[in-house]
Amino acid sequence: MENYLDNSATTAVFPQAAQVVYDVLTNKYGNPSSLHRKGLEAELVLKSARETVAGELHVPSETIYFTSGGTEANNIALFGAVALQRKPGARLVATAIEHDSVLAALKELERQGYEVVLVSPDSNGEITPRAMAEAVDENTILVSAMAVNNELGTVLDAASIAKEVKRKNPNVIVHCDAVQAFCKVPLRFGFGYTDMVTVTGHKIHAPKGVGALYVNKRIKLPPRAFGGHQENGLRPGTQACALIAGFGEAIKLCQKDAIEVSQGIKQLNALLKERLAAVSGVEINSPDNALPYILNLSVPGIRSEIMMHFLEERGIYVSSGSACAQGAKSHVLAAAGISPERIDSALRVSLCRYNTAEDINSFVDALAEGIASIRRA
Amino acid sequence: MENYLDNSATTAVFPQAAQVVYDVLTNKYGNPSSLHRKGLEAELVLKSARETVAGELHVPSETIYFTSGGTEANNIALFGAVALQRKPGARLVATAIEHDSVLAALKELERQGYEVVLVSPDSNGEITPRAMAEAVDENTILVSAMAVNNELGTVLDAASIAKEVKRKNPNVIVHCDAVQAFCKVPLRFGFGYTDMVTVTGHKIHAPKGVGALYVNKRIKLPPRAFGGHQENGLRPGTQACALIAGFGEAIKLCQKDAIEVSQGIKQLNALLKERLAAVSGVEINSPDNALPYILNLSVPGIRSEIMMHFLEERGIYVSSGSACAQGAKSHVLAAAGISPERIDSALRVSLCRYNTAEDINSFVDALAEGIASIRRA
Repeated sequence: MENYLDNSATTAVFPQAAQVVYDVLTNKYGNPSSLHRKGLEAELVLKSARETVAGELHVPSETIYFTSGGTEANNIALFGAVALQRKPGARLVATAIEHDSVLAALKELERQGYEVVLVSPDSNGEITPRAMAEAVDENTILVSAMAVNNELGTVLDAASIAKEVKRKNPNVIVHCDAVQAFCKVPLRFGFGYTDMVTVTGHKIHAPKGVGALYVNKRIKLPPRAFGGHQENGLRPGTQACALIAGFGEAIKLCQKDAIEVSQGIKQLNALLKERLAAVSGVEINSPDNALPYILNLSVPGIRSEIMMHFLEERGIYVSSGSACAQGAKSHVLAAAGISPERIDSALRVSLCRYNTAEDINSFVDALAEGIASIRRA
Repeated sequence: MENYLDNSATTAVFPQAAQVVYDVLTNKYGNPSSLHRKGLEAELVLKSARETVAGELHVPSETIYFTSGGTEANNIALFGAVALQRKPGARLVATAIEHDSVLAALKELERQGYEVVLVSPDSNGEITPRAMAEAVDENTILVSAMAVNNELGTVLDAASIAKEVKRKNPNVIVHCDAVQAFCKVPLRFGFGYTDMVTVTGHKIHAPKGVGALYVNKRIKLPPRAFGGHQENGLRPGTQACALIAGFGEAIKLCQKDAIEVSQGIKQLNALLKERLAAVSGVEINSPDNALPYILNLSVPGIRSEIMMHFLEERGIYVSSGSACAQGAKSHVLAAAGISPERIDSALRVSLCRYNTAEDINSFVDALAEGIASIRRA
């Protein structure tokens, strides 16, 4: 039996979404840019999915641009916002716990001469709107703050961050990487202060290789890549129609039972915390009010890889941090002030709708067994 | 009945490739960057497809980087080659009949201060290695020449172009957009002078949204986007595993009967030309030695859109040019010296393995009928 508890890395695709992908591949194979009926058929597939993404974010559908995933969307957003404002040396502000695709893009911009200021979580593990606004000065042109952190589950108040930041400096463009929040918490960006939002499919049971960027109509973002007129020229290249259709289908499926699933995940998270409390040697790294989908814990003294391997042998899949970092030391845990010993032994358990109480119990049982067995060795 | 003759815009997906996509989506859903067995399973999917792409190009598999398609691959190649060499104002040379994703990227580089020189076809409709080399000077850092043009079917001798260019200036990085040639003509880049090659899936019955870039190991290309370590850091972002698997499957299927298919397309092309010769008012724009998959023709006096619509009503799908240009005046035909009247009335017929003699006959019958009917109106 597989016990997959690495759902913040990626998720199993909804069978119905996979079926939609297959159907588009085999029946609606036209190029959406073609000016004939086969093209229109494909364009309608995009249109429908665009409306679904927009609906979930509560924004107009013409503000949604499909991308190949979160990394591409984050890169388009950050480089675009900086190119748009043409203020060499200006300040860019982000949280210190952003995903690699935001931090690496900022690092490149720093290399190009921009000032990058990163805001770390406070002693409560939180990043408040006030803390973000305090980092903003008159020379700031961009703020990027994620909605939910991918390693700890830290929840940020994206709407209030955008509001506070703009109160401090109304010219700042505010971006939110909402990859881990999308379809898990209600997101309403349409009437707020957030200018750009990144989402992706493969964290919500849609295929890997498709994501989207919301860009407020006020912002005339220049493209990062050049070519055809697709996605209004912001993201040229023939669209991955089948994946986009699967993405739309997955969102619809998430919407159907969002409340029940959210309740179920809360219960699993509570069970997990309750059972872990009885296991000696386990320390919780996630903040108390983290998104219940993610629980980060440490077993100081037992390196993450050792425990991951022990669990894997029993068909249990967790991670030591972000898949994109592939085993590198977590910048997120470090920024959260977690000790090196705990970082070295961190494990991330991340849940999805398909997990059961049995999964949680078998994980905690195996973890306890692992602690005893590895310590004995 | 559908008579789809727009296969250079995009192709119907092989049913077996669609099945492979479905299987990966539903069974091998791990993140290839995850350090556990589910991740490894997905990584092996990428590895196998990477070997298949590499095999078709006759290059080592570690030189293949998956992208979201041809446009992204072309952008990574061109911007990367320019960034690598850090010679502001240097000369970039390309053919004037490149795809929009090459020309638009060059236009952006021109805006940034580089000198862009475009080489047009000669009076035979050809772009010779000598003509390309003549445009190269000591200050040239990049040459981009496609293998097969997407509107006319013009075949360029990519290997000889690279050789001649490097004879003139060995420091030039040579890129080849082989999107329309891939799996249609034998391509051997491993021991040649070409440094970078772009290919894509959706022109060879693989899904839209997946492509690849070959980069010779000599070239340490800097990335255009920033994030995780995926694709050796050159193209960060979680890979579209299912599409990549479908891409690999499609290449294998093409390889199985490449010679028979190539023969079949030649026969269809010959039939098409023979039948068109008997239709008064039709002029052929493609060079005589064009790739038989593509035939560009004009019916001077009848605008492309009018004829496309007439044909579409009869279930026949052709195009007026590149889908990516979506009806814009063709820069390719203009560069080839074709008259404005012929450009306004151009139609591209592009074939694939699924087309039959009946498709050709019904197209030519409908075209002849259309000419008579539209002229009468």
